[in-house]
Amino acid sequence: LTSRLPDVGTTIFTVMSALATEKGAVNLGQGFPDFHCDPALVDAVADAMRQGLNQYPPMTGVPVLREAVAAKVEAIYGHRYDANTEITITAGATQGILTSVLCCVHPGDEVIVIEPAYDSYVPAIQLAGGVPVYVQMEVSAAGYAVPWDAVAAAITPRTRMIMINSPHNPTGTVLRRADLDKLAAIVDGTDILLLSDEVYEHMVYDGQRHESVCRHPALAARAFVVSSFGKTYHVTGWKIGYVAAPAALMAEFRKVHQFNVFTVNTPVQYGIAQFMSNPAPYIELPAFYQKKRDLFRNGLSNTRFRLLPSDGTYFQCVEYSAISDLPEAEFAKWLTTEIGVAAIPVSAFYHEARESGIVRFCFAKRDETLELALQRLGRL
Amino acid sequence: LTSRLPDVGTTIFTVMSALATEKGAVNLGQGFPDFHCDPALVDAVADAMRQGLNQYPPMTGVPVLREAVAAKVEAIYGHRYDANTEITITAGATQGILTSVLCCVHPGDEVIVIEPAYDSYVPAIQLAGGVPVYVQMEVSAAGYAVPWDAVAAAITPRTRMIMINSPHNPTGTVLRRADLDKLAAIVDGTDILLLSDEVYEHMVYDGQRHESVCRHPALAARAFVVSSFGKTYHVTGWKIGYVAAPAALMAEFRKVHQFNVFTVNTPVQYGIAQFMSNPAPYIELPAFYQKKRDLFRNGLSNTRFRLLPSDGTYFQCVEYSAISDLPEAEFAKWLTTEIGVAAIPVSAFYHEARESGIVRFCFAKRDETLELALQRLGRL
Ligand SMILES: CSCCC(=O)C(=O)O
Ligand SMILES: CSCCC(=O)C(=O)O
Repeated sequence: LTSRLPDVGTTIFTVMSALATEKGAVNLGQGFPDFHCDPALVDAVADAMRQGLNQYPPMTGVPVLREAVAAKVEAIYGHRYDANTEITITAGATQGILTSVLCCVHPGDEVIVIEPAYDSYVPAIQLAGGVPVYVQMEVSAAGYAVPWDAVAAAITPRTRMIMINSPHNPTGTVLRRADLDKLAAIVDGTDILLLSDEVYEHMVYDGQRHESVCRHPALAARAFVVSSFGKTYHVTGWKIGYVAAPAALMAEFRKVHQFNVFTVNTPVQYGIAQFMSNPAPYIELPAFYQKKRDLFRNGLSNTRFRLLPSDGTYFQCVEYSAISDLPEAEFAKWLTTEIGVAAIPVSAFYHEARESGIVRFCFAKRDETLELALQRLGRL
Repeated sequence: LTSRLPDVGTTIFTVMSALATEKGAVNLGQGFPDFHCDPALVDAVADAMRQGLNQYPPMTGVPVLREAVAAKVEAIYGHRYDANTEITITAGATQGILTSVLCCVHPGDEVIVIEPAYDSYVPAIQLAGGVPVYVQMEVSAAGYAVPWDAVAAAITPRTRMIMINSPHNPTGTVLRRADLDKLAAIVDGTDILLLSDEVYEHMVYDGQRHESVCRHPALAARAFVVSSFGKTYHVTGWKIGYVAAPAALMAEFRKVHQFNVFTVNTPVQYGIAQFMSNPAPYIELPAFYQKKRDLFRNGLSNTRFRLLPSDGTYFQCVEYSAISDLPEAEFAKWLTTEIGVAAIPVSAFYHEARESGIVRFCFAKRDETLELALQRLGRL
């Protein structure tokens, strides 16, 4: 059997979570909350099940949820997607990403991937028969930044898509309007598509705003925008998200979607739609997570870790050269095993493990959990 | 934008369901029950949510559900899959099918598809860059049968996979041991893989038994076996199923799975696992559906429809040449619009719409629904 994905092992998130469990470490590795979602959300899903809403929903998602998404996007970003033709509910953001790539990347097409990059991007490109072309973010004391000149230089006549991600996993970098303008200048006059992974859209801090590509008409016209309900509503295990794109792109997306998962759990869709009628949860999310970020950063300021900025996401990257000269993967294992706190090596987000001496912590945890982790990390 | 799936429109199931709703027809088209699942199943999922089991489960599915599947398969078919390495929970059978194909079909590989065939098979092959090779079932007064000689003749050095489906959608044909023996002889000594779509495994009638390929060691060693919880437990909208395969195949499956959906809704997995500890629901399913099949067949015996056999699935095919000479798609639309009963044209299951004068009804409906449909069809 010849593998279609010969370079793929088990994702780093699974590996580190398993090690954390085995060693009884505080798991700040894989990104998920250790606190509960709003019980009203659970009730809404349970109600839908009890009402008997348990058979196939429409392939694109239940209309009331697509409408709720369109209304939310318009309220926040001022862009109106047509709920019927431009929004599809997905079995999580990962499925939205693979489906976006599969529906428009042809064998031999190039796709620009900006590293560090979430680990599903490149396999998605490879499964489509596409060729990943890598550009690396610049790292400085001020944090990570996308070098748009390098992106422009990577464009060829075969470039079919550029994948961007903001707020950015793992670095917490948030793209600004100036970034989107540079990207718009690069793709202007080409037929290059964009995949914009915005799953952390509701986690941007210090009063900044999330620059969804849908705010930028020239980008929105060529973009698949991917988001996640699991991250926004503290239910990462529910595996539900959505993709928004102009109708012509969405039509191609749906051709693949209907033969990938066909559609998504009906009662979960109805439950989330009802829960979304109250915007408070996502409006209050930045303040909720900023407190956790600040608690965690303050705690680390007494250690020899050097804190990188975290302007968005629920991740905090730290540079550890004052503590250890182990490679990142070794250091993350050592932290988990010896110090009792699991982290993710940022090298896992590069196709050729690049060593920057940086690991990622997830601060989507109860304050007690963060305090326990800080106590352990304080030994360093 | 050049389509990756230029021939794909909206699935016939969605088209006919939309028409049924628009015309107020009894919907015997798309395959789904119009009755409720066991409330205990809903309670089990709600309990899991209330216990806070709402974050990422393991990528392969929660162990307790994989164990429950392994135990069920062993109890019924006598084959033991290893729950850790040979079973993965999927976001429905459709995702299991696409993922099985994507993980082992390389560009240019041939995949044998036996028509009539479920409409997701060929797009899955095309997305992998594979080439579908078609063999058509024989139709006679005795029903549909797989011509194994024609399958053997379709094998070439490029054949990578054969897709089979039993109990068969749309025809209700059930493969026998003799069929599997013929298939085993065909693949013996080759490295051809099998995809066995067994989503209707628990719906086989008249005291016959389902011949899962896992009963047949020579086949099990090279097969992805796909099943569905939605069909067995009357919750088609929950989008959850599983794939079982030998460890070496499953390892490749999981590489793709983790970058397709990553994993499947956590509380639904726990709820089903708990519910499965009682085998009664799937043990009683054949009798439950056989009564509905017989009610429906008896009702139709007074009409000019000619009944084909339905040995399994919740589908009944009928030949209508004594009623109309319309092509199948037209006839199905006419039935929906003028008679008030939606059906699926079997021609939709062929790559080149083949006209056999046969449509498919779904009898997974309350007795009242079937009686109303029969009353309307009785006019014919
Ligand atoms: C799909 S498990 C990984 C969760 C996540 O997005 C992360 O930790 O980066
Ligand atoms: C995915 S909708 C189709 C349901 C079904 O399997 C059928 O009607 O054949």
